Amino acid sequence: MQLAIHLDSTSTVPLHRQLYEQLRQRILSGQLLPGQRLPSTRILAELLAISRTTASLGYEHLLSEGYLQAHRGSGTCVCTQLPEQLLQAASPIVSVPSIGGSPRLSRYGAGLSEARMLLGKVSPPPSINFRYGPPAFDALPLQQWRRLLTRHCRCSPGVLDYATDPLGYHPLRESIARYLTRSRAVRCTADQMLIVSGSQQALDLTTRLLVDPSDVVALEDPGYLGARHAFLAQGAILLGLPVDSEGMVMEQLTGQPPGTVKLVYVTPSHQFPTGSVLSLPRRLELLAWAKASNALVVEDDYDSEYRYGGRPIPALQGLDRGDSVIYVGTFSKVLFPSLRLGYLVVPLELMPVFARARWLTDRHSPLLEQYVLRDFIEEGFLERHIRRMRRLYAERRQVLVETLHAHLGNRASVLGEEAGMHVLVRFQTHLSDEALVARAAEAGVGLTSAAANYLHSDVQGEFILGYADLTPERLVEGVVRIARILDAKE
Amino acid sequence: MQLAIHLDSTSTVPLHRQLYEQLRQRILSGQLLPGQRLPSTRILAELLAISRTTASLGYEHLLSEGYLQAHRGSGTCVCTQLPEQLLQAASPIVSVPSIGGSPRLSRYGAGLSEARMLLGKVSPPPSINFRYGPPAFDALPLQQWRRLLTRHCRCSPGVLDYATDPLGYHPLRESIARYLTRSRAVRCTADQMLIVSGSQQALDLTTRLLVDPSDVVALEDPGYLGARHAFLAQGAILLGLPVDSEGMVMEQLTGQPPGTVKLVYVTPSHQFPTGSVLSLPRRLELLAWAKASNALVVEDDYDSEYRYGGRPIPALQGLDRGDSVIYVGTFSKVLFPSLRLGYLVVPLELMPVFARARWLTDRHSPLLEQYVLRDFIEEGFLERHIRRMRRLYAERRQVLVETLHAHLGNRASVLGEEAGMHVLVRFQTHLSDEALVARAAEAGVGLTSAAANYLHSDVQGEFILGYADLTPERLVEGVVRIARILDAKE
Repeated sequence: MQLAIHLDSTSTVPLHRQLYEQLRQRILSGQLLPGQRLPSTRILAELLAISRTTASLGYEHLLSEGYLQAHRGSGTCVCTQLPEQLLQAASPIVSVPSIGGSPRLSRYGAGLSEARMLLGKVSPPPSINFRYGPPAFDALPLQQWRRLLTRHCRCSPGVLDYATDPLGYHPLRESIARYLTRSRAVRCTADQMLIVSGSQQALDLTTRLLVDPSDVVALEDPGYLGARHAFLAQGAILLGLPVDSEGMVMEQLTGQPPGTVKLVYVTPSHQFPTGSVLSLPRRLELLAWAKASNALVVEDDYDSEYRYGGRPIPALQGLDRGDSVIYVGTFSKVLFPSLRLGYLVVPLELMPVFARARWLTDRHSPLLEQYVLRDFIEEGFLERHIRRMRRLYAERRQVLVETLHAHLGNRASVLGEEAGMHVLVRFQTHLSDEALVARAAEAGVGLTSAAANYLHSDVQGEFILGYADLTPERLVEGVVRIARILDAKE
Repeated sequence: MQLAIHLDSTSTVPLHRQLYEQLRQRILSGQLLPGQRLPSTRILAELLAISRTTASLGYEHLLSEGYLQAHRGSGTCVCTQLPEQLLQAASPIVSVPSIGGSPRLSRYGAGLSEARMLLGKVSPPPSINFRYGPPAFDALPLQQWRRLLTRHCRCSPGVLDYATDPLGYHPLRESIARYLTRSRAVRCTADQMLIVSGSQQALDLTTRLLVDPSDVVALEDPGYLGARHAFLAQGAILLGLPVDSEGMVMEQLTGQPPGTVKLVYVTPSHQFPTGSVLSLPRRLELLAWAKASNALVVEDDYDSEYRYGGRPIPALQGLDRGDSVIYVGTFSKVLFPSLRLGYLVVPLELMPVFARARWLTDRHSPLLEQYVLRDFIEEGFLERHIRRMRRLYAERRQVLVETLHAHLGNRASVLGEEAGMHVLVRFQTHLSDEALVARAAEAGVGLTSAAANYLHSDVQGEFILGYADLTPERLVEGVVRIARILDAKE
């Protein structure tokens, strides 16, 4: 196979990036056709006289952006389902007209306009929605919240003016630092704490400040889409690390030449979406690797408040002795998503640049909610609420798991029982994920396939079932309806 | 003078960028010394066999980042006050160690860590602070606001869950679109309207989506620092356009080769900080230029609600027939800054990519405040409040201007009387701006020099005096104290 790829080793553009660009252009121009098989990385490396790592990185990038697909045993080929909008949106990038036509997007903007990304949620929502994310809305202590809102909504420049510090309201940062120290064994003071609008802003700021286009970011596969999209938008090359019952598997990371991987994104408390907990030996291995490689680890502790069995494993951040961990948390799950408050714990030396970035990006988070949240924590409402929700969600989880066993038997295996607000379920069915989601929607049930969470394998039959905002009655009814669909097939 | 600069015309890096990088490295390494004079752009162009535009762009970039300074009549030299921290922060960029040492920042992060940028406000604040920005905090209709907060803070997923649309709460977007149509002659529907966390996020998103490093952005000189910093952080090259009594002067913009300037930032209603209004002929010229050049104009209408003389000139956006204008507004000034709500009106074709960027950046703005603001507008509170504040600020402005005349006579000329919440004042004094600011601070008076608002001339003696949050008594007392300082000198 003649690929006609010419790499320039004297260029400042890394070889894997050149490889990526040239293959991408050949796909977009139709020189490489959908379904066409590409040489293995070993053969490609020989053909082009490059290292196998370079070849793999070029492929990884194309795989993670959906230009290529990999099938176990049958190698790598051009994606058969190159979406129409991808090809259309891509043309202005391949040949940008400098004058005339529509506004020219930046590289970042052009990347976004190509990305396949789900925005917000679908409407109208199904009557029983197993979607992941929302807390039990009807159990929120909003009476206290409202009372605190009224308390702080006063004609005082302190709460109405620009914040004196883009990092956030200092008493709130102190409250959260104390809370994390006692509940998560995070080692931090308010001086390392940055209030953000949620974990997405935490990931966006971190990526923007630390990742350049073509930098390599490692992350769990399957993993969290919000993180993957943030890295891809910045032009990062993704290195997917497999996951087993002890969490992220480290070999492919530690086997990379030193300096290759810049950042690792990990969900150690409850791996998303499998729910497995990163074991202590792997935690120590990850930290040792990060220190030796001068890399940073982003620890997303998105739902660690909710655990039901086993001892809590302290946060990775608290084990770290090398200033290698950026710790991310959010109030979207323990309170409510539209609040838009979360936090970042960052090595001290990085705080000034995070402060500058936040000030330039959007100044700071709204202050009234920060005052309210501070009192909400200090007056004990937050931890009381979390304790109540832990009981409520444990009960709902049990109902869901038992009902799945009762109605589906061995046609449903629960994989991610450890996670705090969802389970990962594998259904035995001949239906494709797409077909099952469609039939469930017809029956008023919202299902989310985990296929998109895999970087580039075509796993089918796995579903992320959120249960936090569903009463036991609705959980049972939802499972009954799913069972009916799976029965009808057979 | 031997500069030993070698430009590679076969490189993909633009020549002006190569010129910038090489001069910058020579300054940082000490090969070019502080105060050392550089050749004129004409001579440099001849020396290097490049166009004069290329030479100018390279210089502009270095001037706007503070590496060079220009003096009328004496040419361009290396800045004499290269701050220590600049030199220190820059060293890891000149030679980045790939392993070991502190975390490696991205290009964006490294740029920020070098930037000279004021964060938040100084503390403790002076007792009489003429700072620009804050509204009259004690005149805010917070009773209505609080009532609406209580109304909407309910256990309803609608207000507590993730927004269904990252662009913002649709009824609020409709309310703002109607408000802008009737009060500002903006031509838009809710479908072109994006709720953001204020004008800074509007500028950041716009820059990120439309500007690549080394793109040329034109802006008023003097101008608004928040915009300049956002463009610089993205690596843009700034082209400063002078300002006169009819607003931004167009020659340097229209004289550029087509396609050179990608984006123009302008404050047409009240040029910041001079207060002059962009005349209709210039508006039409700007729009015609933008259409012909396929460039975008960012119209920052930050305080147009407050005007006291003359007929209102409709927004530039409403005059545009070519989809060339992005319109930016904020509630930080008509309501309060810590609210963090503003809006963008964007050409329809750009909406999908703005939605994606917002979702990836920080999802969306908090919902509760969006519900409250919508009712606040629909129930007529916003426009009633604006009418009240227009009277209040007109009175305060008059007190300030009259007191300046009475106490300082011709030692103070008011330059920016048209602006809504500040005046630009030129003091006749032998004190440097720095010295006057320091003496005022000792007297409990906060003064802001306009020197930083100039891109690269060393204008002294101009000050931005905000008056919106100062009662007549405090305005008079403040002026009396300034007069005392100016008297003491003579």
